[in-house]
Amino acid sequence: MSMNSYGHLFRVTTWGESHGPALGATVDGCPPNVPLTAPMIQQWLDKRRPGLNKNTTQRQEPDAVEILSGVFDGKTTGTPIQLMIRNTDQRSRDYGDIADTFRPGHADITYHQKYGIRDYRGGGRSSARETASRVAAGGVARQAIAAIAPSVEIKGYMVQMGEKKIDRDRFDWATIDENDFWCPDAKAAFEWEDYLQWLRKDDHNSVGAVIEVVARGVPAGIGAPVYAKLDTDLAAAMMSINAVKGVEIGEGMAAAALTGRDNADEIFMGPNGPEYSSNHAGGILGGISTGQDVVVRFAVKPTSSILSPRQSIRMDGSPYEVVTKGRHDPCVGIRAVPVGEAMMASVILDHILLDRGQTGGMRGKIG
Amino acid sequence: MSMNSYGHLFRVTTWGESHGPALGATVDGCPPNVPLTAPMIQQWLDKRRPGLNKNTTQRQEPDAVEILSGVFDGKTTGTPIQLMIRNTDQRSRDYGDIADTFRPGHADITYHQKYGIRDYRGGGRSSARETASRVAAGGVARQAIAAIAPSVEIKGYMVQMGEKKIDRDRFDWATIDENDFWCPDAKAAFEWEDYLQWLRKDDHNSVGAVIEVVARGVPAGIGAPVYAKLDTDLAAAMMSINAVKGVEIGEGMAAAALTGRDNADEIFMGPNGPEYSSNHAGGILGGISTGQDVVVRFAVKPTSSILSPRQSIRMDGSPYEVVTKGRHDPCVGIRAVPVGEAMMASVILDHILLDRGQTGGMRGKIG
Amino acid sequence: MSMNSYGHLFRVTTWGESHGPALGATVDGCPPNVPLTAPMIQQWLDKRRPGLNKNTTQRQEPDAVEILSGVFDGKTTGTPIQLMIRNTDQRSRDYGDIADTFRPGHADITYHQKYGIRDYRGGGRSSARETASRVAAGGVARQAIAAIAPSVEIKGYMVQMGEKKIDRDRFDWATIDENDFWCPDAKAAFEWEDYLQWLRKDDHNSVGAVIEVVARGVPAGIGAPVYAKLDTDLAAAMMSINAVKGVEIGEGMAAAALTGRDNADEIFMGPNGPEYSSNHAGGILGGISTGQDVVVRFAVKPTSSILSPRQSIRMDGSPYEVVTKGRHDPCVGIRAVPVGEAMMASVILDHILLDRGQTGGMRGKIG
Amino acid sequence: MSMNSYGHLFRVTTWGESHGPALGATVDGCPPNVPLTAPMIQQWLDKRRPGLNKNTTQRQEPDAVEILSGVFDGKTTGTPIQLMIRNTDQRSRDYGDIADTFRPGHADITYHQKYGIRDYRGGGRSSARETASRVAAGGVARQAIAAIAPSVEIKGYMVQMGEKKIDRDRFDWATIDENDFWCPDAKAAFEWEDYLQWLRKDDHNSVGAVIEVVARGVPAGIGAPVYAKLDTDLAAAMMSINAVKGVEIGEGMAAAALTGRDNADEIFMGPNGPEYSSNHAGGILGGISTGQDVVVRFAVKPTSSILSPRQSIRMDGSPYEVVTKGRHDPCVGIRAVPVGEAMMASVILDHILLDRGQTGGMRGKIG
Repeated sequence: MSMNSYGHLFRVTTWGESHGPALGATVDGCPPNVPLTAPMIQQWLDKRRPGLNKNTTQRQEPDAVEILSGVFDGKTTGTPIQLMIRNTDQRSRDYGDIADTFRPGHADITYHQKYGIRDYRGGGRSSARETASRVAAGGVARQAIAAIAPSVEIKGYMVQMGEKKIDRDRFDWATIDENDFWCPDAKAAFEWEDYLQWLRKDDHNSVGAVIEVVARGVPAGIGAPVYAKLDTDLAAAMMSINAVKGVEIGEGMAAAALTGRDNADEIFMGPNGPEYSSNHAGGILGGISTGQDVVVRFAVKPTSSILSPRQSIRMDGSPYEVVTKGRHDPCVGIRAVPVGEAMMASVILDHILLDRGQTGGMRGKIG
Repeated sequence: MSMNSYGHLFRVTTWGESHGPALGATVDGCPPNVPLTAPMIQQWLDKRRPGLNKNTTQRQEPDAVEILSGVFDGKTTGTPIQLMIRNTDQRSRDYGDIADTFRPGHADITYHQKYGIRDYRGGGRSSARETASRVAAGGVARQAIAAIAPSVEIKGYMVQMGEKKIDRDRFDWATIDENDFWCPDAKAAFEWEDYLQWLRKDDHNSVGAVIEVVARGVPAGIGAPVYAKLDTDLAAAMMSINAVKGVEIGEGMAAAALTGRDNADEIFMGPNGPEYSSNHAGGILGGISTGQDVVVRFAVKPTSSILSPRQSIRMDGSPYEVVTKGRHDPCVGIRAVPVGEAMMASVILDHILLDRGQTGGMRGKIG
Repeated sequence: MSMNSYGHLFRVTTWGESHGPALGATVDGCPPNVPLTAPMIQQWLDKRRPGLNKNTTQRQEPDAVEILSGVFDGKTTGTPIQLMIRNTDQRSRDYGDIADTFRPGHADITYHQKYGIRDYRGGGRSSARETASRVAAGGVARQAIAAIAPSVEIKGYMVQMGEKKIDRDRFDWATIDENDFWCPDAKAAFEWEDYLQWLRKDDHNSVGAVIEVVARGVPAGIGAPVYAKLDTDLAAAMMSINAVKGVEIGEGMAAAALTGRDNADEIFMGPNGPEYSSNHAGGILGGISTGQDVVVRFAVKPTSSILSPRQSIRMDGSPYEVVTKGRHDPCVGIRAVPVGEAMMASVILDHILLDRGQTGGMRGKIG
Repeated sequence: MSMNSYGHLFRVTTWGESHGPALGATVDGCPPNVPLTAPMIQQWLDKRRPGLNKNTTQRQEPDAVEILSGVFDGKTTGTPIQLMIRNTDQRSRDYGDIADTFRPGHADITYHQKYGIRDYRGGGRSSARETASRVAAGGVARQAIAAIAPSVEIKGYMVQMGEKKIDRDRFDWATIDENDFWCPDAKAAFEWEDYLQWLRKDDHNSVGAVIEVVARGVPAGIGAPVYAKLDTDLAAAMMSINAVKGVEIGEGMAAAALTGRDNADEIFMGPNGPEYSSNHAGGILGGISTGQDVVVRFAVKPTSSILSPRQSIRMDGSPYEVVTKGRHDPCVGIRAVPVGEAMMASVILDHILLDRGQTGGMRGKIG
């Protein structure tokens, strides 16, 4: 029971702080004989990398991953895979102020209250840099999925920035990779850009976002009751990401407003098995996949690291006005997209392994 | 790694099906010397019990809990506590139709697809009756909390039924226990009653709900990074409840629409430690409690067991029109209130134990 | 992480005390569609049952198992299986002495020191009655093994009682079930009987034993590095049984006295794969099965519950002379045989599931 | 549930292979504010280091540990500690033969049979080099123990090499650190040296050993029933070390030959609590510490890497005669001493944390 681990059979333990020598992920339980090289993982880290464009933090980190174990001749051996990312952009600076003050909305104060000690450099363990480890581990998960369940496809994108939501009628998969926001609505992405630049430069402010992650082609029958429910593990996976405050499966919170008649996904027999008239369930019933798209959404709060002053206290209890200078993301939600994808990949792989462990892929026949 | 368990040190494994001889919970890791008798647990089960009033299912189950182990002379011994609830209302009936058909929105089809076998009587393991086990375990957690962290108080209530939300300006703690909906807004409760009766009797329909659960008096410093985050475990706990489709901490999904300036909970020094201008964070920063109220919300979808016909298929793939007769909750969200409370109690206790395990209650001084 | 659980995917949590209303096992993760009825489990409990013959305790307990969940139409459903055994032979008696004294060699004193409370009736949770729960769970494991790995055969037997060892030259499988000691050496069994009756009646004493458990037909490739090693889990499984003080794999402690030349199991190619000149390794190399017999031995200490007086103290620290009257096993090792078999079955099944989870049964070809 | 992890709250995951770029340990759950620097860990690694004297392998590895995370200003922060050891002595060589042959007594064949792939360089993951990671993690455990339970003292030593046992009458703690064998009997150590040199140089052979590890000053009340028993976890910890084939607590296997009268550790009241006439139990009753010395022994088999030829097969099934040249330990048991100490330290710390988590240090009064 490691506090910094997730997954049952595909088990990831992340480690490292924002400004320590390195951070990374220990990945245990990966199937053997899966093709794996550093570039296969690097492609996903590059998606999360800071400094990619003007809408993310200008901190420059190559985030180059090294594979230290568990791979031989370009294939996984079934033993633990150690992924290490060196921290390089550690500007020498004066942490004097930060060391004995607490930023509103930051984990500074709770780490101090819990542990009686904190690594105050860049947020230490509570920094969103930790998510680089997850993205690296997710890269391993994607390779394993490609090897044993090639039908599965995972894609994340932003559906809301601040109060501005996408128009689902303009949803276009092809658009997602073509703008800085991983936004499936090209018109919305265009508007978001202006808004975000104004927010950062003129309003000295930041803003939240909603990310949606979809897994297509997940076979029916993945998941298990109560605490290995697919939705339970997805909720935990997404909520464990920094700054996430809400998680939804399918209809999510909106399910509360529906009636039973409207919410029912009616079932019909298709050429390859059951088909559904709709997907309010988000691809999961009773914690087990239906074979429809698995759909998860999560809300990322706005970063509290802004140029606008906020009231706070020092360690000695005296009042202090916090103004966070430096290179921060005006909308951390953007870089949360590849993180959400990585968590989805890890959870899906884990449940495929769990399922074949318990059932051996046994499946009830329909039709 | 049990699939039907939750908790790290306070570890609960639930077992049993809707129409088997019994169901229950195996509770391991409870602190010793905690006063515990069946009536102390029964009070919470009575809150969840079916047939209490006209707004819940008319199924009659006494849900009487027996303590089979782990208690001696009215106190916990520190060894596993077995809680058993006999199923009594198992009307003999013809399950012919149900046995080879699938109800839209039910786990019938996914259990069949996963396991190749299902206990079709009343939903088997996927039935919401499973939550009785959790409520019983939550009763143990409440007793342990009372013994080792008596400042903690846990309360759940409904804040939305269908499209009808409460008016937060009318919020009144005293009202919660005085209506059938555990609703803190007396006027809303009054309106909900008419609506729900119409929905059930005339519209042959059901409706979803949003439940909020608050834990007051949780000491600062409970929780831990990444996967033992307090919010991670709360999200998993709530999402693991039947029919839940969304979970929120503090601002929840609405955090996406806020700016960093508006979302910041400013910090001031109070007579007993830090105080906050607001609680957008829901009492959790970086996965660790701040000492403010811990606030969780979850959405319960409408039950799919309705009198209105819905299209589905038989096991052989042929079409079938499902009409669910019988005694079902028109709004399962009502009875989810004590379940949410039980999960909150279990998670809070678990994290108090985890924290004193790792840190021994070490706390950084402020002021 | 339950303290009273064992197994990774096939996960057993035992509960209950010697003189409470019942004890049992919660079995999670069993494969679905495995034929399972109470009599299939009862046969193994009957082997462990007290009062079977004059060489075991005269306490009479039917140890009748009830299946409360997880089975439908005579087959496992893949959901948790609850096995309950009612305690029936709870003679009403005066526990006055026992309640505030500590028996040498008993867990009385450590339970008191840890928990500050103990169920002193018959040893409470520390009683060897707990092993009935394991035998029941082992019965489930045996059924699952029969369904998914029918080549596996598990057998336990006593190879030493006190200082008296069997003669390996007289080893006869057929003899094991034909004497009260599960002894494969008929001549030794004959001698043990006289010795044990003298020890109990005349010497008012008890004696230890060594049990060996063999699993035949375990496929090569079961197990995994470091802490899911097959031998690691077997050692833990056996050491967790009451009164066990030593565990050996293959040569065991005697391996220390061998040279590398003598200890090497040379490899030859047989018609169905690799064959070995010997089995010093006990069927396990690097924590993974070789396909040879998996051989485990464990030593059971003599019970401290004897008629001969022993010095001890009361709870208040005053001296007290303990004489244990009542119905106790003069050699608890006898009834440990079915317990060892049950633990072997649980571990083997668990590792078969783990292996197919991670590798999908991938196997490197030889020849 | 990581296959390469051990511990409940103090959770260690080791990673890395013999000839990869590095190996190490991810340590989660360490208490915060524990003084920790690389040299504090290095001292224990130096004890295990190869090439220290003529009785161990001549492979030269500095085994220099780097702390990559979890430590700030020389103290643990309570977040994961990453310990990395670079592999430096990777002589470039031709692995042609090894790549497609199997060495008798090695995990070559089982890794191949399980995973269908193996890192054949120096044994890959199955190499005893993995134990360097454990020793590093044990160094962290020792620091934490020193901080929160300073009464505890841990010491390991060899009590048998081949057939040659120490004479317990000559046991001298001071001698242990003064010979190459960590042997408490100076005379035995002197004899072992000649024997081992002859064995290696003239007999081209290797030999097994028995190591004993003692933990003094462990408070009474550490451990818990069934699967978090202190002896269960110690047995698993020791059996998980490479080449270990047997584990004993207190009397160990010899307990089988004792009678109940002889095996009883009689109890008397001393000035500071209960005292015992003997310690057959090895400091553990019912899985919980008594306050006496915790005594564990384990047998290490002789290495199969010897110059004497042994029969084996190639991957294609053809016969092959194995002669292992190179730098191997004639008695791997010597370097297993610090490994056993490290595992003891990790288990003891873990159980101290577990105990204060569940009981908060509650203790039943005696006297």
